[in-house]
Amino acid sequence: MNWLRNIWYQAGWSAEVGTSRPLLRTILNEPILFYRTADGALAALLDRCPHRFAPLSAGMIENDRVVCGYHGLAFGSDGACVRNPHGAITSAMKVKSFPVVERYSAFWIWMGDADIADSEKIPNLSFIDDTPEKARIYGNMPTMCNYQLLTDNVLDLSHADYLHPTTLGGIITNAKAMSREVDGTIIAEWQSVGCEPPNAYKPMVPTGLADIWTRVVWQAPALMVLDTGAKPAGIAPLPEDHSFTLHNMVPETETSSHYFFCVTRRFDVENEELTQMLRTAVTQAFKNEDKPMLEQQQARMGSADFWALGPILLKSDAAAVRARRMLEKLISSEASNLAP
Amino acid sequence: MNWLRNIWYQAGWSAEVGTSRPLLRTILNEPILFYRTADGALAALLDRCPHRFAPLSAGMIENDRVVCGYHGLAFGSDGACVRNPHGAITSAMKVKSFPVVERYSAFWIWMGDADIADSEKIPNLSFIDDTPEKARIYGNMPTMCNYQLLTDNVLDLSHADYLHPTTLGGIITNAKAMSREVDGTIIAEWQSVGCEPPNAYKPMVPTGLADIWTRVVWQAPALMVLDTGAKPAGIAPLPEDHSFTLHNMVPETETSSHYFFCVTRRFDVENEELTQMLRTAVTQAFKNEDKPMLEQQQARMGSADFWALGPILLKSDAAAVRARRMLEKLISSEASNLAP
Amino acid sequence: MNWLRNIWYQAGWSAEVGTSRPLLRTILNEPILFYRTADGALAALLDRCPHRFAPLSAGMIENDRVVCGYHGLAFGSDGACVRNPHGAITSAMKVKSFPVVERYSAFWIWMGDADIADSEKIPNLSFIDDTPEKARIYGNMPTMCNYQLLTDNVLDLSHADYLHPTTLGGIITNAKAMSREVDGTIIAEWQSVGCEPPNAYKPMVPTGLADIWTRVVWQAPALMVLDTGAKPAGIAPLPEDHSFTLHNMVPETETSSHYFFCVTRRFDVENEELTQMLRTAVTQAFKNEDKPMLEQQQARMGSADFWALGPILLKSDAAAVRARRMLEKLISSEASNLAP
Repeated sequence: MNWLRNIWYQAGWSAEVGTSRPLLRTILNEPILFYRTADGALAALLDRCPHRFAPLSAGMIENDRVVCGYHGLAFGSDGACVRNPHGAITSAMKVKSFPVVERYSAFWIWMGDADIADSEKIPNLSFIDDTPEKARIYGNMPTMCNYQLLTDNVLDLSHADYLHPTTLGGIITNAKAMSREVDGTIIAEWQSVGCEPPNAYKPMVPTGLADIWTRVVWQAPALMVLDTGAKPAGIAPLPEDHSFTLHNMVPETETSSHYFFCVTRRFDVENEELTQMLRTAVTQAFKNEDKPMLEQQQARMGSADFWALGPILLKSDAAAVRARRMLEKLISSEASNLAP
Repeated sequence: MNWLRNIWYQAGWSAEVGTSRPLLRTILNEPILFYRTADGALAALLDRCPHRFAPLSAGMIENDRVVCGYHGLAFGSDGACVRNPHGAITSAMKVKSFPVVERYSAFWIWMGDADIADSEKIPNLSFIDDTPEKARIYGNMPTMCNYQLLTDNVLDLSHADYLHPTTLGGIITNAKAMSREVDGTIIAEWQSVGCEPPNAYKPMVPTGLADIWTRVVWQAPALMVLDTGAKPAGIAPLPEDHSFTLHNMVPETETSSHYFFCVTRRFDVENEELTQMLRTAVTQAFKNEDKPMLEQQQARMGSADFWALGPILLKSDAAAVRARRMLEKLISSEASNLAP
Repeated sequence: MNWLRNIWYQAGWSAEVGTSRPLLRTILNEPILFYRTADGALAALLDRCPHRFAPLSAGMIENDRVVCGYHGLAFGSDGACVRNPHGAITSAMKVKSFPVVERYSAFWIWMGDADIADSEKIPNLSFIDDTPEKARIYGNMPTMCNYQLLTDNVLDLSHADYLHPTTLGGIITNAKAMSREVDGTIIAEWQSVGCEPPNAYKPMVPTGLADIWTRVVWQAPALMVLDTGAKPAGIAPLPEDHSFTLHNMVPETETSSHYFFCVTRRFDVENEELTQMLRTAVTQAFKNEDKPMLEQQQARMGSADFWALGPILLKSDAAAVRARRMLEKLISSEASNLAP
């Protein structure tokens, strides 16, 4: 499988790695050891000693260095060998290290050419920082399917009407929908005017009909920010009525993915009961409904290519197909740039 | 693997599918959803939505239609899309459907060219209908081996003497055996005159010596009907002394099979104690003796072709080898007919 | 994978096979049934009936013969068919048999050309016979890694300092080390003069500093004998101060191995408490420390070739690399001799 490599992938949430809690996580099929040095900085090393290929995660972190548990070689956070008990250190003695940056309570890894890793290219998710920690609902839902199936899922929200009928569903199929390409992103939008609000929107419109919108902005390879909200029918939304949610799909292997999500809001942020209610709804929708369906979808597809199976496409697939096409173009363009 | 496709395969026993109990079963590597419409008719659809390949079995049956649980497309029992909530229905929107027929308390699926599916070609198993329901012993024994190993097993009943010594064995190795081809079937016969009856034949000949016969009629791809019985030595059998048993091997995958069986008899059919005794003997022989041996045999063969391993063949293999050769010819002839 | 075939492989410890306890063990990917005839002699047959490939181990041993549990064919300990209940015996009816020899409380199998199997070529392990049974610590530690990783592990004992810090480690990294090739063997040696003895050496030098030596003699494909011991610093060792240990790595499959070991000593051999203490230390080092590290190492390597991964080699790898190179040469020479 070809993956886009010169791009920042979210590798986790900051709280997942502590100074005494390294994290082993596979990204694009590569096992990577994440750890923090004493000053709190993150390091990301290939979890395989260059000597005899023992996992470094089977050793220990000591004085900001990773010590292999098999023969005692130690590596600094840049991957260079800093201790060889068995002789001289040469420049060949290094383990692959990856650029890693912490931002928006998440940490990001660059899986491509390190020389062009520019942290300015990390997508703007400032809505996370703008949300009080307590009002954020975030997590990682490991899912046994290709990451593009997860993208398809979010870019065609009509599935909510069938897969999430008790929480989010009921309005998308009949909403005014459109999708378009804007500056290398794909935007998909749904507008429902004067509709009966699904349960997840009841906190915003407890009684009566509502105007509800959802706008997904996708960028390659598989990061989506949703802007959604509801107002009583006919009332114009205020800025704080827009709630933002991150859906970020990161390939673990060809058929498994990390699904990082973060639901935020700007209204009633001190209401912990509401936060808990939303967390329960999200859990119901993501873990009990999306995940099993997506994993069964992958199982039915097996190792076949999506297009090779000849999918019957519907109008509602428009945004997802645009995103697949754009990603294919980016991957193929990156591949041809790498070629001699 | 090449399978014979233009043929009826038993897909189950009728009682396995109810109007509110659909059945998901894999036949020739294809996952198939069987369900009943309100009028009791059976339908068989590929268990994969043509839109995004979610299993239809993860959705629901509603008004005789299968509704995909992911995006709400609905399909009739002929596979045609009857509801697309997201736009127009086109003729391309269909899921593969299979001809399915119910007969002899079983249901049968046609895995090949639907245009030539002719229910008259379902093998005659009227002995099942002729047997009171209560006196039938039937079931399905999933077995982790290629279906041809199961055919071999039944066409060489000499294994009974070694694998089933306490129930069926003791007389086959020394019986008068013969096999021949008749009108596209293979017939294998064993005659034991004046022998000590094995336990399974004691209900017919409780004391003294017996004359025992078994006659297997095989037809492609792997359906066998056994006619067996015992009489006190020297006494000619009456029609009701012939008991018929179905052994029908249906490929699930290359290395797993459905083993449908139905043991019937025409004597003492109201004797439920006898039925129970025979059921216990069958279970002992099939599940505790045949199944483990066949699965170990498959494990030893791995993915190797049977002939490529160079089996040492014995006289007792004659019928099984005939059947393998005939099946190979049928499969290859079908393949060349399909070629342009 | 290419294996050296014209060589004796240890297949087990004698006590593992009794007259009523056959043993099924896979060597070089071949499942082999070991059993004893009434006179105690060992036989080794491919565990696959040549008729229909049922495992012979699913049958029974009867009068020194293996009877297939499927159709009753019987084979003598030389593999020749001695009973065919279904017809004549022909010379083609035989199961592959392997030369097998018992020596040093172990049994040895020849996996290559039986015509040149010469028991004189079994390595001299008379130190085992010289050790009272009660003072031997032996076993088999199945390990999920390629056997050459196990060889590497023993030929670079520096790992003890990092992987076995509480039992054997602490002196090897700083020891005087050398390795050389002698008559088709590889010898690796470590000398520590005036060192603090690791716990495993405390029985020899309970107080004060020690002189400690370890000498590994490797021979193809993966058999190593260690000579190790400790004396109070400055005191010359007596012959009985040399303790010998067998480490014999035998391929089960490409990624799993039998690890046969036997620790002996010539001092204080009646001291059962000491034997038990050493057994506990060995178990700690082998099963709790070596095995997990080696299995993780294999997991990180996956199916990749060791050299293809470009290992960074250290001085301490010298002996292991010599052994790998010598084994490669032997395997390639054997292969070219076999070629027409």
